[in-house]
Amino acid sequence: MTPRLTLLTDFGTRDGYVGAMKGVIASISPGVALDDISHAVEPGDVRGASLALERYWDRYPSGTVHLVVVDPGVGTERKALAVEADRRLLVLPDNGVVTRVIDSADRWRAVSLEREEFWADHPSSTFHGRDLFAPVAARLAAGLALERLGPSVRDPVRLPPLPAPLATGDGAIEGRVIGIDRFGNLSTNLPAEELGGWEWVEVAGRRIPRAETYGRVGPGELLTLVSSDGRVEVAVRGGSAAQALSAAVGTPVRVLSDRSRASPGPRR
Amino acid sequence: MTPRLTLLTDFGTRDGYVGAMKGVIASISPGVALDDISHAVEPGDVRGASLALERYWDRYPSGTVHLVVVDPGVGTERKALAVEADRRLLVLPDNGVVTRVIDSADRWRAVSLEREEFWADHPSSTFHGRDLFAPVAARLAAGLALERLGPSVRDPVRLPPLPAPLATGDGAIEGRVIGIDRFGNLSTNLPAEELGGWEWVEVAGRRIPRAETYGRVGPGELLTLVSSDGRVEVAVRGGSAAQALSAAVGTPVRVLSDRSRASPGPRR
Amino acid sequence: MTPRLTLLTDFGTRDGYVGAMKGVIASISPGVALDDISHAVEPGDVRGASLALERYWDRYPSGTVHLVVVDPGVGTERKALAVEADRRLLVLPDNGVVTRVIDSADRWRAVSLEREEFWADHPSSTFHGRDLFAPVAARLAAGLALERLGPSVRDPVRLPPLPAPLATGDGAIEGRVIGIDRFGNLSTNLPAEELGGWEWVEVAGRRIPRAETYGRVGPGELLTLVSSDGRVEVAVRGGSAAQALSAAVGTPVRVLSDRSRASPGPRR
Repeated sequence: MTPRLTLLTDFGTRDGYVGAMKGVIASISPGVALDDISHAVEPGDVRGASLALERYWDRYPSGTVHLVVVDPGVGTERKALAVEADRRLLVLPDNGVVTRVIDSADRWRAVSLEREEFWADHPSSTFHGRDLFAPVAARLAAGLALERLGPSVRDPVRLPPLPAPLATGDGAIEGRVIGIDRFGNLSTNLPAEELGGWEWVEVAGRRIPRAETYGRVGPGELLTLVSSDGRVEVAVRGGSAAQALSAAVGTPVRVLSDRSRASPGPRR
Repeated sequence: MTPRLTLLTDFGTRDGYVGAMKGVIASISPGVALDDISHAVEPGDVRGASLALERYWDRYPSGTVHLVVVDPGVGTERKALAVEADRRLLVLPDNGVVTRVIDSADRWRAVSLEREEFWADHPSSTFHGRDLFAPVAARLAAGLALERLGPSVRDPVRLPPLPAPLATGDGAIEGRVIGIDRFGNLSTNLPAEELGGWEWVEVAGRRIPRAETYGRVGPGELLTLVSSDGRVEVAVRGGSAAQALSAAVGTPVRVLSDRSRASPGPRR
Repeated sequence: MTPRLTLLTDFGTRDGYVGAMKGVIASISPGVALDDISHAVEPGDVRGASLALERYWDRYPSGTVHLVVVDPGVGTERKALAVEADRRLLVLPDNGVVTRVIDSADRWRAVSLEREEFWADHPSSTFHGRDLFAPVAARLAAGLALERLGPSVRDPVRLPPLPAPLATGDGAIEGRVIGIDRFGNLSTNLPAEELGGWEWVEVAGRRIPRAETYGRVGPGELLTLVSSDGRVEVAVRGGSAAQALSAAVGTPVRVLSDRSRASPGPRR
């Protein structure tokens, strides 16, 4: 079976850095199938990379190697990790990017990449993507056992947890926008299935009705629905909710049910 | 033989949505070779996706599965399709993106993706790319027969036809710009081989000479030529015709021969 | 063994041109593994493509076919080349993009792609990527011998050499910024290992200390170090040196040792 290896970086593609990583991988594990996830992560955006990784890591079959190089701490004392979680393998800097994987995995274990014989010869101090992460990921894809790479790590760096949704006095639940995708849809930290019978959200003074799908509102209208990640999402059919609401990461989102006593904002 | 599957979406890559689709596909059809076409289609630009698809679908070998998810109607009543055209397979929303394929194919048939056993379990209402199109495409790549996916569709949605070129009274033919590529070259709706002996085009009051190739004019000069799609194209050698002519999709392009009585615009 | 073929172009992806090339390649060499390097090279930026190519070409295993289509001279008399360098194969226009490969290879030979039976039938005059380079690259991946493609070329076009570093009267060495990557790091034409005991650089009147890695300076601080390409690099930890110094390609970079008599610029 062809091993499969995915790549997520903030390198862009134009400079040839990703190409160098792919070449190193193909040299060590020649039959590997390389899947680009993205190289357009904002430079150093560990939280954004973590959100993206959460969306795909366990959609891939067991045995897949996921390589993530969003590494603002390259050249500092940060560790480098290999992680096995629910039979997928991950190779990434120890900067919190793995947080959502190990929080959702049934089982995981991690090692610190300290065995230099599995790195490139004469590794640079600035491009661990090519000289450390890529060779190790390729060796895992070729069948090397995780535990050979270095000592166990029991406490990988974790991102600060998302602020928990807050029950307000008036019966509403208040959360936050945690991400905005290319379409301008707003992701929140509100897990839909724990909210029971919510019927509206309020964002930026606008009261927005819940709908099962985009088709239940007219083109250009706001709606709130359960996202494909299982969270409360705010969207505009055929448009950008971020633009319509001038919303950004951190913008409060209040979930209202009929029983909420919250005074509604102006209706559209 | 490794099956090959291509992906064209408007998702961007940064959010991990395309990664989720690739993971689903690799889980169902592990040996598949995945070729990215693009994830940079403008959000919801069905016509742009259709133009791009026309350029590559039949360059691939027979048996290739082409997955296109540019789906502004997700969550509405629009159908989802699988199409076989000239021995290539296509999986895409029924929103007109397939128009140019079935208009140019010698033979085609289509089915509506209604057999839910071939979708993901518990499909979301907002991410059919991951939960419906990707699983179906992967199953086709793995050998599932088209007719098992659902009932026949004889009338897929088609994009409104491009306005036909217009013969004007003075012997000229008038068409339109239908696309502008990354280089600023102008694609038109004028099929070169039906125009006989054309010698100039007129755009935005500029008369532009025909040349066989870019090399026949000086750097920075305008020319018109037969595009790699067989249409009349307007270009600048080493520059952008869109910029030089302030042209956009819809800008009129008049084709002139020596016999046209059209008064020429100012010559360069 | 699956042959592997990489693609570097300035086509963007949105228009489907790269898709057309991939389809042509897959039709000729069905089992090929296609690795995207980038399609985001600035239109016509031969020097940028050459810098990128230098970073990955020999990281790939021997036998790899590297296809580069950054081709502002398409449709002029420029030649098209296939090159074998240190057991990798390259297919590209004869416009200098291969300069750094042949300058660094131990052995190379090149041929001019004149044997039309290996091109597409009825090649267009504007899209040699699809009609000439892609079919030839695919045939090389499928095992065709280089010498069958056309006559030998002993003098491929080369880019003008980078200006050589200049020893100034005061004991400093003056070079130039030759590239700026996505992070805003400045690449220079100064080969680090030939400079001996350098300790600072001076850029835009700022004196910047050398450090082994980013971790040796505070967040937001400037440093100079040996890049992953072995050249003098100027960077900001967690930021953009290009922005901090208003630097561009061509900006002078002076390397200073303790023995330099150069008057230091203002210290930060």
